[in-house]
Amino acid sequence: MPQRRIITLITDFGLSDHYAGVLKGVILRVAPDAVVVDISHEVTAGNIAEARYLLQSSFRYFPADAIHVAVVDPGVGTERVPVAIESPHGVFVGPDNGIFSGVLVEQGVLEPMTGELVGGKAVALENERYQMRPVSQTFHGRDIFAPAAAHIAQGVPLWNLGPSVDALKAESRPPLVTDAGALRGSIVHVDRFGNAISDVPLDMVPENPLIEIAGRSIGGLARSYQEGPLVAIAGSTGFVEIAARNNRAAELLQLKVGDPILVRAANHEQ
Amino acid sequence: MPQRRIITLITDFGLSDHYAGVLKGVILRVAPDAVVVDISHEVTAGNIAEARYLLQSSFRYFPADAIHVAVVDPGVGTERVPVAIESPHGVFVGPDNGIFSGVLVEQGVLEPMTGELVGGKAVALENERYQMRPVSQTFHGRDIFAPAAAHIAQGVPLWNLGPSVDALKAESRPPLVTDAGALRGSIVHVDRFGNAISDVPLDMVPENPLIEIAGRSIGGLARSYQEGPLVAIAGSTGFVEIAARNNRAAELLQLKVGDPILVRAANHEQ
Amino acid sequence: MPQRRIITLITDFGLSDHYAGVLKGVILRVAPDAVVVDISHEVTAGNIAEARYLLQSSFRYFPADAIHVAVVDPGVGTERVPVAIESPHGVFVGPDNGIFSGVLVEQGVLEPMTGELVGGKAVALENERYQMRPVSQTFHGRDIFAPAAAHIAQGVPLWNLGPSVDALKAESRPPLVTDAGALRGSIVHVDRFGNAISDVPLDMVPENPLIEIAGRSIGGLARSYQEGPLVAIAGSTGFVEIAARNNRAAELLQLKVGDPILVRAANHEQ
Repeated sequence: MPQRRIITLITDFGLSDHYAGVLKGVILRVAPDAVVVDISHEVTAGNIAEARYLLQSSFRYFPADAIHVAVVDPGVGTERVPVAIESPHGVFVGPDNGIFSGVLVEQGVLEPMTGELVGGKAVALENERYQMRPVSQTFHGRDIFAPAAAHIAQGVPLWNLGPSVDALKAESRPPLVTDAGALRGSIVHVDRFGNAISDVPLDMVPENPLIEIAGRSIGGLARSYQEGPLVAIAGSTGFVEIAARNNRAAELLQLKVGDPILVRAANHEQ
Repeated sequence: MPQRRIITLITDFGLSDHYAGVLKGVILRVAPDAVVVDISHEVTAGNIAEARYLLQSSFRYFPADAIHVAVVDPGVGTERVPVAIESPHGVFVGPDNGIFSGVLVEQGVLEPMTGELVGGKAVALENERYQMRPVSQTFHGRDIFAPAAAHIAQGVPLWNLGPSVDALKAESRPPLVTDAGALRGSIVHVDRFGNAISDVPLDMVPENPLIEIAGRSIGGLARSYQEGPLVAIAGSTGFVEIAARNNRAAELLQLKVGDPILVRAANHEQ
Repeated sequence: MPQRRIITLITDFGLSDHYAGVLKGVILRVAPDAVVVDISHEVTAGNIAEARYLLQSSFRYFPADAIHVAVVDPGVGTERVPVAIESPHGVFVGPDNGIFSGVLVEQGVLEPMTGELVGGKAVALENERYQMRPVSQTFHGRDIFAPAAAHIAQGVPLWNLGPSVDALKAESRPPLVTDAGALRGSIVHVDRFGNAISDVPLDMVPENPLIEIAGRSIGGLARSYQEGPLVAIAGSTGFVEIAARNNRAAELLQLKVGDPILVRAANHEQ
């Protein structure tokens, strides 16, 4: 077992309150040698899709045995099931509300339509021995998810934490509709720089692409943010990104999450 | 002596400036194996009561030998005394301005009225050997508090850091006035989700409570945030909390820190 | 080689996105025992001068073998050279865009006029073996700078990372113009408290100084923030700072970065 197992955190707890700090206290009491890494605590409150994007954009840069805790949990206290999932690259801990579907579908261990687990292993976190008792109604991050992650880091086998689960909530975005060679996608994230990141994968983009976004047409992918006042560029996570030189593209084009983007070959009939 | 002693930080330094990072540099130079955990650096500038709430809400989730540094210090450079305090659960380091009264009264080692220490041990941080010299007039976090915490983590006994102190500034909120079975409290914190946390402890709440807040009456404690458009709920820190389904209760009710809350038995004469 | 080498981070990535977390994943995969310390990720997007100030204000509080990664890199993807620099106090890793000139000039290893390296050693980070391949066009923090820092932490000698570089971009502020005993400086940073920090070094300030700022005259240096409604004070980083009692001086005086400040002896002819 590794000495300093990594546990990453993605939450919507913010950094003003004590919530994120308390998660670390709970983890370090159980697993004093764990290394806790914040990915983001600034997910928009209750926004599961945003947490899913951040998780997909980060998990591959951590060791395969890292444990990723994601707590964006508007249904805390309702019937949604707290889970832990082992996958080829990473263990994931959090509420079963679709937050993990991206990383699991990408790894081929979750059927995007049915939510069936076709690889990996998942359990419902029901074993009280690995919870902080009594479990509160509103802070399962502290009482269920952080303790589960810490015990996993200490080497507790997944099956000790609760009964097996065969299917998870599947809530990936639909695959891109491509008609006549065009890729239809949407904006999934606007980052701190005002760059708008789409779900159009770079490896599907044709040579000499024409990108249509917010009523504008952009020809080709730029090589740097400095190449023009408004550019499409190969984003660092593997998707087409819309950016502006020394400016916030999302504000320039009034872009928001969910807005459509179309990518096609420039020499295509138009 | 533990190998990786935990040092937590609560400050109003924010995360844009270098101040919080510098605290960590100073700590790690003295105590390279310490594990530094941020609770919050986003305390409202100079707001001692807010820091006191965050400290009370977090210290119990850390090991009993953890060292908690709290630097909200509007009086830096004036006569207020820098102190370190040993208590049954935690060592506390910071200015003696009332920031620690909550955690000390709760543990029974500080008299809430007189500020007399009736257990534990406190010293004034006067020993220059454990300071960064010359001490600046404006950044005692760096020059006094971080070095003291780091030396304590390294095993320096408290009494080496300076002369004993017998009393501390006591600035806990007054205990709840209860007349005819009703609990009078106030809002002490509004969190990132707009939840308003009161100082009414759950274990004093009667069965079938009626909660009066901002001119509204709420019957009973809800089991989840989803239970109604406006709910009173058992908060995760042990106090009555006012929340709204998919909404910010504090804004809905125009609540702010200090606003009154009344809790009584619903079948009480009214 | 130290067991737990410190790597600090200064970026303009913010804390909402996954960018800062991903840097840590990349670092910890290469250097699992490194201790990563955030100085700030909230540098104004693209503001090299602000990052330079934060670096200058923090590097001396870390051990001399600490590695400081600074990625404020508006020119990412253009011709600017990624570098690593060894200096007497610290190794610096980031784009060669002037971000390091402050800490290097201060240590006497960079000629402020010519950018010539007169001590220390710098290399261009060209060796693909120590990069994350393929290198993206937009996220060299992840693909070049974090891996370089991590390999240096693991003991890889600097000269393995790429060819030597003899000169760096010098973009220090000009030295203070002093005419007839007066010091002319400017505001270089406004911190979270609204304090305005200048580049006038305390050790050049005459006894009984008169400070002119935004049309006001302030006599003498105060000993605490509480000393008057508007004070000049010895800032914690060694420069004259303008502050206001329980108020934000920068807003009170409409101060912004770049505004001039004049310091002279009060008994000087005027």
